[in-house]
Amino acid sequence: MKAKIHVTLKPGILDPQGKAIEHALATLGFANAGNVRMGKYLELDINEAAKDKAEAQVKAMCEKLLANTIIEEYRYELQ
Amino acid sequence: MKAKIHVTLKPGILDPQGKAIEHALATLGFANAGNVRMGKYLELDINEAAKDKAEAQVKAMCEKLLANTIIEEYRYELQ
Repeated sequence: MKAKIHVTLKPGILDPQGKAIEHALATLGFANAGNVRMGKYLELDINEAAKDKAEAQVKAMCEKLLANTIIEEYRYELQ
Repeated sequence: MKAKIHVTLKPGILDPQGKAIEHALATLGFANAGNVRMGKYLELDINEAAKDKAEAQVKAMCEKLLANTIIEEYRYELQ
């Protein structure tokens, strides 16, 4: 089973990386781009046929390692 | 208009960050996770009402700054 995971900063948390990209885009002439937010995207295979078990595992992975839940939120899809 | 951009390593390109995560997951007891691939996810607002113009701009941003097209591929959605 394949998991696709998005980890993004919670709204309101300052995103210096996004700001740096926004500034770089403006320098390149893309002045109409704004509110840039940078996040992470992970794909992984999980060797588990039962969808509910796989989902529980992916959730645990996000909570324990992949996301810092104080400042980040995550979402995932299983296929 | 809001753009959601995924930047991922091309298949076959070595992903040391993904390998490190895979190893860390195994250490945490998630031995059935494999083939971890790490990518980037960006959201940005683009001040352009015409969808075709916005699309051309997002494509140019990806080509010029957001993705290294030698080793990475990108995809985007506009809303």
